[in-house]
Amino acid sequence: MSKKGIILSGMRPTGRLHLGHQNVLNNWVELQDEYQCFFFIANWHALTTGWEEAKFIRQNTLEMVADWLASGLDPEKSVIFAQSDVIEHAELHLIFSMITPLSWLERVPTYKDQIQKFGAMGKDINTYGFLGYPLLQAADILMYKATAVPVGEDQFPHVELTREVARRFNNLFKPVFPEPQAVVHKKIATLPGVDGAKMSKSYGNVISIGADPDEIKKNVNLMVTDPARIRKTDPGHPEVCVVHKFHGVYNAPQLSELEAQCRAGSIGCVACKKQLAIALEQAQGPIRERRNEILSKKGYLEEILQDGAARARAVARKTMEEVREAVFG
Amino acid sequence: MSKKGIILSGMRPTGRLHLGHQNVLNNWVELQDEYQCFFFIANWHALTTGWEEAKFIRQNTLEMVADWLASGLDPEKSVIFAQSDVIEHAELHLIFSMITPLSWLERVPTYKDQIQKFGAMGKDINTYGFLGYPLLQAADILMYKATAVPVGEDQFPHVELTREVARRFNNLFKPVFPEPQAVVHKKIATLPGVDGAKMSKSYGNVISIGADPDEIKKNVNLMVTDPARIRKTDPGHPEVCVVHKFHGVYNAPQLSELEAQCRAGSIGCVACKKQLAIALEQAQGPIRERRNEILSKKGYLEEILQDGAARARAVARKTMEEVREAVFG
Repeated sequence: MSKKGIILSGMRPTGRLHLGHQNVLNNWVELQDEYQCFFFIANWHALTTGWEEAKFIRQNTLEMVADWLASGLDPEKSVIFAQSDVIEHAELHLIFSMITPLSWLERVPTYKDQIQKFGAMGKDINTYGFLGYPLLQAADILMYKATAVPVGEDQFPHVELTREVARRFNNLFKPVFPEPQAVVHKKIATLPGVDGAKMSKSYGNVISIGADPDEIKKNVNLMVTDPARIRKTDPGHPEVCVVHKFHGVYNAPQLSELEAQCRAGSIGCVACKKQLAIALEQAQGPIRERRNEILSKKGYLEEILQDGAARARAVARKTMEEVREAVFG
Repeated sequence: MSKKGIILSGMRPTGRLHLGHQNVLNNWVELQDEYQCFFFIANWHALTTGWEEAKFIRQNTLEMVADWLASGLDPEKSVIFAQSDVIEHAELHLIFSMITPLSWLERVPTYKDQIQKFGAMGKDINTYGFLGYPLLQAADILMYKATAVPVGEDQFPHVELTREVARRFNNLFKPVFPEPQAVVHKKIATLPGVDGAKMSKSYGNVISIGADPDEIKKNVNLMVTDPARIRKTDPGHPEVCVVHKFHGVYNAPQLSELEAQCRAGSIGCVACKKQLAIALEQAQGPIRERRNEILSKKGYLEEILQDGAARARAVARKTMEEVREAVFG
């Protein structure tokens, strides 16, 4: 293999993904040809902010992996597994905990933000595990000696912590770990939810990956357009229109034409939405078909995860042998 | 088995033990007939306060297990293993971390004490792992569903934390864990070091378990006696004499006679020490012989630990199956 390096990335098992996740998934799909990739379901991480929802994690995991595969992740090329199936992550996390000053974790910028954010929702997440979750991330990453980690900008400090932990371990014991580089996701326009707010399951404004035609139609109809446009002959302002933003991603070749027609008042919102529904169906149809095919094969996803866990474990065990040897001599 | 319950206890791998540890070991030996006992080498715990000494842990473990066996721990009756050989402890610790409020750990009484104590020695132990070590203890204990934990009084808060964690897990998920009871070690007179201070390796005032005759003689000679007694005919004050304290433990039947002779000035310190050396040799001789026999069998201790780890793992895996089922459904 003449790969460019090793990549690790993961998602919390939130269940079915939506179009707001497509950007990350498309990036992953591209990366898997250039890198040896490990993609994991962060099911222990999910417990740091919501053990109440723990009982949905198993089902959410399967739904999410179906989305991954339908979007083009290839279990032959990449190792796809659930974190809790490789308990060595917990061991490495524990060993790292012994060499990580408390202050390193307390000053992770997201730490206090998140506690406040959840606190405002009436949820106390101030546990030992929540404080330690960037360290669990470090263990996730370093276990596979990842050289690159695709992240959003808000996660830069986590990768920096991972690098610090790797350096400290290497200095105190033996040089076991590389220092991974953060690789920022290629940016595409961030799609809003159908109501114009951030697309998020908890706002109920999402379109699922592989949505069926009814869901697409219903949601496109709900999309907020230019409120100043009363009659279809009124000139529109595409810059404030959710439909326009979606055309930008799913209907790029027609975008400038649609924009001109909107501004000229020569196309109505109903017709414009109809065209978007068609474009979305063109993109989601094949994903939906793959998704349904995957879900129809009984036991297939479980098999993928078992196979992935076995491959991940083989690497993890090798790393942990080196770690134990480095620590205990 | 009609045992009274399940016991878990452990020691950090400090290397060869000394007579100050004999009390705990004798208690363990008694317990192993009444309880199903798990005795473990807390080698991950050792990292919480001194990863610098990590490279000695392996050798220290073997030395200590030799002392355990020579003192009467029976690997047929009890499960003797090293913590790091059962990585499920790390997994349970991680899961507990998700449901344990930070404040529970911050208010463990030993927490700030220890940080200050080590700080005064110029050692910064303020790591994430050190904050979490009572939670690692909880995982150690609950993994085997221990019903009783033999502890010194200073460790009561740790058992209380373990009970709190068990209750919280049982309430949030499913009733998996019993709430263990603290069992205080039977008290015998605490032996001082040969200089009269607390017996401790770091003070260099110890007599090893299974000490050889030379070590015994040398150390008995170093023992501090009544400083007011210049001539052997001067009346002595046994209550300030280290030799007297050792006679109390190792020469109980002769104690009152020796005390009377000392007070009367009819026995000198040299003769009194000679008698103590004989009594100590009577106690340590058989332990030393067993110890030497154990150490002469190449690979024997490693085998004991491997076998113990396999038996511990079998129990741990069963517990973790229940835990995973309880958490993830």
